[in-house]
Amino acid sequence: MINEKLPKMWYGGDYNPEQWDAATMEEDIRMFKLANIDVATVNVFSWALIQPSEDEYDFSKLDAIIERLTKDQIYICLATSTGAHPAWMAHRYPDVTRVDYEGRKRKFGGRHNSCPNSPTYRKYSAAIAEKLAERYASYEGLVVWHVSNEYGGYCYCDNCAEAFRSWAKQRYGTLEALNKAWYTTFWGHTFYDWAEIVPPNALSEEWSGNRTSFQTISLDYRRFQSDSLLECFKLEYDAIRKYSKDVQITTNLMGTYPELDYFKWAKEMDVVSWDNYPSLDTPFSFTAMSHALMRGLKSGQPFMLMEQTPSQQNWQPYNSLKRPGVMRLWSYQAVAHGADTVMFFQLRRSIGACEKYHGAVIEHVGHEHTRVFRECAELGAELVKLGDTLLDSRHQSKVGIVYDWENRWALDLTSGPTIDLKYVEQVHRYYDAFFKQNIQADMISVEEQLDQYEIVVAPVMYMVKPGFAQKVEQFVANGGTFITTFFSGIVNENDLVTVGGYPGELRKVLGIWAEEIDALLPSQSNQIVMKDAYGALQGEYFCNILCDLIHSEGAEVLATYGSDFYKGMPTLTKNRFGKGDAWYVATNGDEAFLSDLIKTIVEQRGIKPLIAPVAGVEVTERVKGEQRFLFVLNHNNEAAEVDLGDISGMDLLTNQAVSGHVSLASKGVMIISY
Amino acid sequence: MINEKLPKMWYGGDYNPEQWDAATMEEDIRMFKLANIDVATVNVFSWALIQPSEDEYDFSKLDAIIERLTKDQIYICLATSTGAHPAWMAHRYPDVTRVDYEGRKRKFGGRHNSCPNSPTYRKYSAAIAEKLAERYASYEGLVVWHVSNEYGGYCYCDNCAEAFRSWAKQRYGTLEALNKAWYTTFWGHTFYDWAEIVPPNALSEEWSGNRTSFQTISLDYRRFQSDSLLECFKLEYDAIRKYSKDVQITTNLMGTYPELDYFKWAKEMDVVSWDNYPSLDTPFSFTAMSHALMRGLKSGQPFMLMEQTPSQQNWQPYNSLKRPGVMRLWSYQAVAHGADTVMFFQLRRSIGACEKYHGAVIEHVGHEHTRVFRECAELGAELVKLGDTLLDSRHQSKVGIVYDWENRWALDLTSGPTIDLKYVEQVHRYYDAFFKQNIQADMISVEEQLDQYEIVVAPVMYMVKPGFAQKVEQFVANGGTFITTFFSGIVNENDLVTVGGYPGELRKVLGIWAEEIDALLPSQSNQIVMKDAYGALQGEYFCNILCDLIHSEGAEVLATYGSDFYKGMPTLTKNRFGKGDAWYVATNGDEAFLSDLIKTIVEQRGIKPLIAPVAGVEVTERVKGEQRFLFVLNHNNEAAEVDLGDISGMDLLTNQAVSGHVSLASKGVMIISY
Amino acid sequence: MINEKLPKMWYGGDYNPEQWDAATMEEDIRMFKLANIDVATVNVFSWALIQPSEDEYDFSKLDAIIERLTKDQIYICLATSTGAHPAWMAHRYPDVTRVDYEGRKRKFGGRHNSCPNSPTYRKYSAAIAEKLAERYASYEGLVVWHVSNEYGGYCYCDNCAEAFRSWAKQRYGTLEALNKAWYTTFWGHTFYDWAEIVPPNALSEEWSGNRTSFQTISLDYRRFQSDSLLECFKLEYDAIRKYSKDVQITTNLMGTYPELDYFKWAKEMDVVSWDNYPSLDTPFSFTAMSHALMRGLKSGQPFMLMEQTPSQQNWQPYNSLKRPGVMRLWSYQAVAHGADTVMFFQLRRSIGACEKYHGAVIEHVGHEHTRVFRECAELGAELVKLGDTLLDSRHQSKVGIVYDWENRWALDLTSGPTIDLKYVEQVHRYYDAFFKQNIQADMISVEEQLDQYEIVVAPVMYMVKPGFAQKVEQFVANGGTFITTFFSGIVNENDLVTVGGYPGELRKVLGIWAEEIDALLPSQSNQIVMKDAYGALQGEYFCNILCDLIHSEGAEVLATYGSDFYKGMPTLTKNRFGKGDAWYVATNGDEAFLSDLIKTIVEQRGIKPLIAPVAGVEVTERVKGEQRFLFVLNHNNEAAEVDLGDISGMDLLTNQAVSGHVSLASKGVMIISY
Repeated sequence: MINEKLPKMWYGGDYNPEQWDAATMEEDIRMFKLANIDVATVNVFSWALIQPSEDEYDFSKLDAIIERLTKDQIYICLATSTGAHPAWMAHRYPDVTRVDYEGRKRKFGGRHNSCPNSPTYRKYSAAIAEKLAERYASYEGLVVWHVSNEYGGYCYCDNCAEAFRSWAKQRYGTLEALNKAWYTTFWGHTFYDWAEIVPPNALSEEWSGNRTSFQTISLDYRRFQSDSLLECFKLEYDAIRKYSKDVQITTNLMGTYPELDYFKWAKEMDVVSWDNYPSLDTPFSFTAMSHALMRGLKSGQPFMLMEQTPSQQNWQPYNSLKRPGVMRLWSYQAVAHGADTVMFFQLRRSIGACEKYHGAVIEHVGHEHTRVFRECAELGAELVKLGDTLLDSRHQSKVGIVYDWENRWALDLTSGPTIDLKYVEQVHRYYDAFFKQNIQADMISVEEQLDQYEIVVAPVMYMVKPGFAQKVEQFVANGGTFITTFFSGIVNENDLVTVGGYPGELRKVLGIWAEEIDALLPSQSNQIVMKDAYGALQGEYFCNILCDLIHSEGAEVLATYGSDFYKGMPTLTKNRFGKGDAWYVATNGDEAFLSDLIKTIVEQRGIKPLIAPVAGVEVTERVKGEQRFLFVLNHNNEAAEVDLGDISGMDLLTNQAVSGHVSLASKGVMIISY
Repeated sequence: MINEKLPKMWYGGDYNPEQWDAATMEEDIRMFKLANIDVATVNVFSWALIQPSEDEYDFSKLDAIIERLTKDQIYICLATSTGAHPAWMAHRYPDVTRVDYEGRKRKFGGRHNSCPNSPTYRKYSAAIAEKLAERYASYEGLVVWHVSNEYGGYCYCDNCAEAFRSWAKQRYGTLEALNKAWYTTFWGHTFYDWAEIVPPNALSEEWSGNRTSFQTISLDYRRFQSDSLLECFKLEYDAIRKYSKDVQITTNLMGTYPELDYFKWAKEMDVVSWDNYPSLDTPFSFTAMSHALMRGLKSGQPFMLMEQTPSQQNWQPYNSLKRPGVMRLWSYQAVAHGADTVMFFQLRRSIGACEKYHGAVIEHVGHEHTRVFRECAELGAELVKLGDTLLDSRHQSKVGIVYDWENRWALDLTSGPTIDLKYVEQVHRYYDAFFKQNIQADMISVEEQLDQYEIVVAPVMYMVKPGFAQKVEQFVANGGTFITTFFSGIVNENDLVTVGGYPGELRKVLGIWAEEIDALLPSQSNQIVMKDAYGALQGEYFCNILCDLIHSEGAEVLATYGSDFYKGMPTLTKNRFGKGDAWYVATNGDEAFLSDLIKTIVEQRGIKPLIAPVAGVEVTERVKGEQRFLFVLNHNNEAAEVDLGDISGMDLLTNQAVSGHVSLASKGVMIISY
Repeated sequence: MINEKLPKMWYGGDYNPEQWDAATMEEDIRMFKLANIDVATVNVFSWALIQPSEDEYDFSKLDAIIERLTKDQIYICLATSTGAHPAWMAHRYPDVTRVDYEGRKRKFGGRHNSCPNSPTYRKYSAAIAEKLAERYASYEGLVVWHVSNEYGGYCYCDNCAEAFRSWAKQRYGTLEALNKAWYTTFWGHTFYDWAEIVPPNALSEEWSGNRTSFQTISLDYRRFQSDSLLECFKLEYDAIRKYSKDVQITTNLMGTYPELDYFKWAKEMDVVSWDNYPSLDTPFSFTAMSHALMRGLKSGQPFMLMEQTPSQQNWQPYNSLKRPGVMRLWSYQAVAHGADTVMFFQLRRSIGACEKYHGAVIEHVGHEHTRVFRECAELGAELVKLGDTLLDSRHQSKVGIVYDWENRWALDLTSGPTIDLKYVEQVHRYYDAFFKQNIQADMISVEEQLDQYEIVVAPVMYMVKPGFAQKVEQFVANGGTFITTFFSGIVNENDLVTVGGYPGELRKVLGIWAEEIDALLPSQSNQIVMKDAYGALQGEYFCNILCDLIHSEGAEVLATYGSDFYKGMPTLTKNRFGKGDAWYVATNGDEAFLSDLIKTIVEQRGIKPLIAPVAGVEVTERVKGEQRFLFVLNHNNEAAEVDLGDISGMDLLTNQAVSGHVSLASKGVMIISY
């Protein structure tokens, strides 16, 4: 449990007092106390300050900051500051800056600008982490280490090229194996010497960010860069551990951020933390899925909400204010899905540079008489009241939804059949269908144990890694329900097609063969026509994007296409396999279809919603021993009537007993303990 | 005649068995026989395999492939493999990779990546061609040489810069002449030393691909790069001819591909071949025009359909399947327009890299029980039945439509008057007007003999090369009908304006003067108002894009503008010149106008449609001695009723006599011999 | 006064006879006389001709041109030719070409390609200017010096980097002060050595042209580049002044061109000149504002209209012809707003390169029998008739509208709150509101004396420079009316937020506090709801883009928001301050709102329109001593009825007395002297 030293939902966030004077900091602390803020993330971008030159370290300012905060019982989330290297380093050691996708050597500037294979960066980032650990490991107020910041971005420099060759040698052993995996007989790409390999970017195999001539080279480069950045994290982790044995270490992740394989990363982290910045048009079920994914990284272990904005962002095209109540609502949404902290970027607004219009607890006006501060202070008081009640509670889901970063990369890189197939969107469509019916789902990796679930969904499981198909067969044979879709089972972990008929290794469990795959124009569509009503499924549904032309090889055909030359071919099948069933959805059905499909399947499995669904009202549950906590969140702009069914308990936020039909105000939250 | 050794429509395509094992190849050959596939294009991308290092050649695998195919009477289209250089070459000799439009030196990767002026590339590509010729020239099964693959793409490296200077020296002799042609007094660009000249790209004169400060420099660079790539082709051609005296040599072209002057290329090729990949929204009359253009490259000589997809492509945004019957329909469309082969990319699908989702005769499932294979096999059987009947038959067109790559380049590069003027689109609009009326048209170069035609159309003949105007005058004086449009006759071959009044050298034969040229916004339009009904022309038509403000200097004014300050000025004129007429269309009339215009003109000339037009039904004719072959292709999704008029003959595909009114199924084809 | 030697509206323009032969030039001059053209701008792009190599100058051709023109009383506007460096210079001294925003070293080509900090460029541009001055200073026909051409474009090379460090040292003195101003504690950017500073571009702090991590670095780079180019101008200016003591010196500006701080430039110029190229969709009030801005650069001094096109442009996507009468109308529009010359680009069309389809007085046909020439000749005759009547007359405006390039840069660079806030558009919206009511307004700098106006408007005065707020307070205290808007008063001259509450330094005079700033999506809007009718203001108005959430601190609240959670908060306030009023417009009201607002304010101030407004009819006035010249321009496509009220005088163009109700033809112009 992360919150041991401070056994409550931590409340606070990024704090950069090095940007202003001591008097202002005094004011800040006065206001922190007003708002019950008890954790400050410091030193996130102070590398240049604490290491003014190659041989010089100066912790005096940081000492003062930490001491001052600690004095008022503000606990410390201590960052290692390596998210942006100092200017002197870029000037003296050009290897520290990246070469970008276009092949351009970058100069000093911005952040996310350090080459992960730079000897200079690796040496000095590990060194500063070690220095910090040596100095602050035993500080009373230190509650967690925050390595670097929002790792991301790839590099294509010569150091990376060399490291990529080593990485590939490690993976494949011989050039013969590499040539086979990379399918280099195509377009005469056979490599006869490791030195001939170059990073795939706009100067070699790729263009437009994810178009490539050689999918496997590009896929491996993503793996390699994710690993390279992870190596940087591990170097700092190990450096910290030399001195700091007990304090947990994290780095702040970014939800469905595409570039890093977070499942691999999470294995090296003590606790997951992440930064939640929904865009203006992000559906709240997408945010919910992102939280569930972050929770799933460590198989359900609670995570830290490391950053969110108290009011507005600055980097969106249109940065609207969070409406009254929304910051609180979204904070509890994070908690509902497994967060054990509520933290902001940022506690006070900068007055210069590019984030000065990003919201903060303390705004430019500098006092507490603002709407934003008032809302923050009210939430702070509630979190104090909640104490340790919710901490370390878990989720009990009967549904697991598979998410896989390498599968996403492979799909992103595919040339054909359609540009409209987006992996994250497809996964979210299934998550959303369960979500809207108040059926809780976990987001799981392909390595997760499947038998803890009744239903496992793997949308667009394009890449089937070794052992996964066998695991699915066993899961279904033992009674599980497996659901997958069009364009699944196509390739192995090296993006090489499994010949002999799609969906390849999944063909047996699904009992079907996909002969052809038709891509539809945005203006085109087809229909899913039910042969007979089946559960909630009946009549016709709209479908588009891709249509697999499948043949049953034993599966029951529940629906067929309604038009085009493949009218009458199966579009929804269910295959009895051992004690369970494997479903295949051959096309992209509309929302009504997915809703009826999921309803049908959960009903067949006898899985019940947490409570009866109401539009715009989100329901989740955390469990701690015998105690259950039902979160009810009203995202609507109006009050909502909710039927709690046979649940009756106490709302932790009001200390009122609740049961039966209750009304929940717009943006309102209940946490019913029962 | 290309098909001498194998006197039938060749049937087959690209085949890359180096990508899989011998057992798979055995299966392939078994299926080839099922489908009557008799030609395989091999070695297209095997350079790295057959030349594993600078001094080493290894033909063992290629020997085996060719022998195995030959054993089963699969003939060989032998590629020289130089479409992509080996990795070792790029590693050892960086001059082999290109510098791109942005000035970036490329690394190893992709294809179309060899600098055409690289000494390394020239040396080794000629050498491998020679080695191949030496080894395989006398192979029984060899039917044609396939040099490189889909030549294209420009380079801007220092070697190209130096070669460009030599090319310019060759063209202009002196700097004085070059300065004059390039109009360098503008913007103080006078060159005093050849070394001062640099390639025009995003670092010098150009931006956005075809925007330029100096049209003539940019135009000459296109000429130069087209010539440089052609030089590469010729080096291989000559190398092959050292050993292979009789086998014809080709390289696969790409229709209206913008970068190469195919009329110039075709002079160096024994036979034209091309790759036909219509996009989803390509009108079938555009495909027809492309075939006609490929046929026109060598003045009507039949060409090879080198590549088409049996089912879907992979590089379109949306890669829909070819519907049942469409592959056959489009194959016969190629034949109708002059193809003497029907070949595919590809015979078997790759399992890795970027073309693995491109259609193939043998799909990933690997057996013959697929719709795609069945359709391929059915077509194969028909082609066997057709035997040599159609081979080397020709077209007899009374209409020639001028197409000129240099004119296209000049128009693309023009700054003003409008970005909506697209040369290929304008040419297609006229081709389509004849096409829809079942009037066969040839696509011809500006060098073609005009007197073989009754009507010559030269849409947007912006650039008038030396002698062309005189040729037109003679053609018209002798009784021909010439049609041209707005923005014609403006510049000479160096893109310098012919002063003294537009349309310059064409002014005399057209009998008009264009005083001004108005460009219309996309939201604007004008009208073509007929003075009196004239043939099929009557009333008013819509027009847009450009409006020439013309004065008659003797021409008959048939129509005038309907609005704006130039209302009443001529918009359609016909000038009697000698025994013929020269028409000027001063604006971009709509489809109805073009239809009525062409109808009027062909009726005046007494030219009759092949048969009465039916919407969606394409009609073409090939002729061999006394024998005529009328191709009737139904592109509609429904059956069509066709009136054959006084034609009665035998349908070669059914061996049925046909005449009078016949019904043709959706996607159906008749080849009526009469 | 510029026109001393030739005391009339100069008429002529850019003339490049070095592009053609002597016979053509004779024809040109014959036609110039027909059109009363009396000024030719020569030598604009002749650097390569007059300096064929490093040590060689050859003025023979230029001598001949100037002598020939002078012989026929065509006066000379003599350009220094430094707008494009010679090819030999780029070849021999690569420092002369720029490094672009993407970090790419440019080669020879185009124009705007010289690095302003290139030692080579500075040396040779000053040298050629000096040579020209030495040779031509005493020429009878010389009337004005034209330095370089349309200065613009930034460079990011190493020479610029070094110069930027010096510039910054000059501005900030110490690294400590620079670090503070640039706010480098953010993202760990502290500089410990000047050498660590690099230009902000796509390789360091910026992307997409105006996105940046560090606003102040980017802002300073714009200041620095504007200064660097100005330094180039000054070097030539000083070189000319060595020999030419009396002739005025200018360079042609470009209206609201974003890259140069023209107010700073104008201080170094003797007379302002500019090139007026409205796009097809430019409102004519925007052109009017641009003229007013050019006039405002030197506090009302008349300017030269250096370039406009007689007919069409070539670099727009759609280059439509100027309709009959429009060239004359727009020429007089320039004069109405302060132009004392009417000049064209260009007198004769080039026949090659990228501007050959740009309109000219003499078109490609080469004779005078064209519509365009006729219109030019008619205008030439009118200008002769007008003589010196209008020369040096001034404007008397009661309204000043503040325009500031540095404020624009700061707004462009801002990250958040919305991408829809465009400074120039906002300024134009206010200019337009006065314009449509025939209230004349000056465009003024933040340094201008405010007390000459009754009303000062400063739309989106985001950046408040030192002393400006005090000046506004004094202006209002003394009885002035000040109007500003949302997102004003936010930062100081270093783009650092003024803490303590928006609108910062303007808070006191405005009597309000802006607590939050909401950004609206394009699909969203709110309402301005008047509490009571107030002057012309009544009911509700539409608003969007940004909504400041403000509190009155003494200001009278005239209107409030109509919806959202800040419904009822003030949206329009008026603060009595001393003897005057300060208005705050908290959101982007629609055109009706602005119209009613301005109407209300001018009525309160008792300011009367020049005459009663008529839609599409522009009215302006110039004054010379006791004499007033009322310009009435009908931009409509139909005649307009105008009521002159109590003005009665003589129309200088017809010599007719006019008064009362008069009808003005479409595109018609009256200049009423009274």
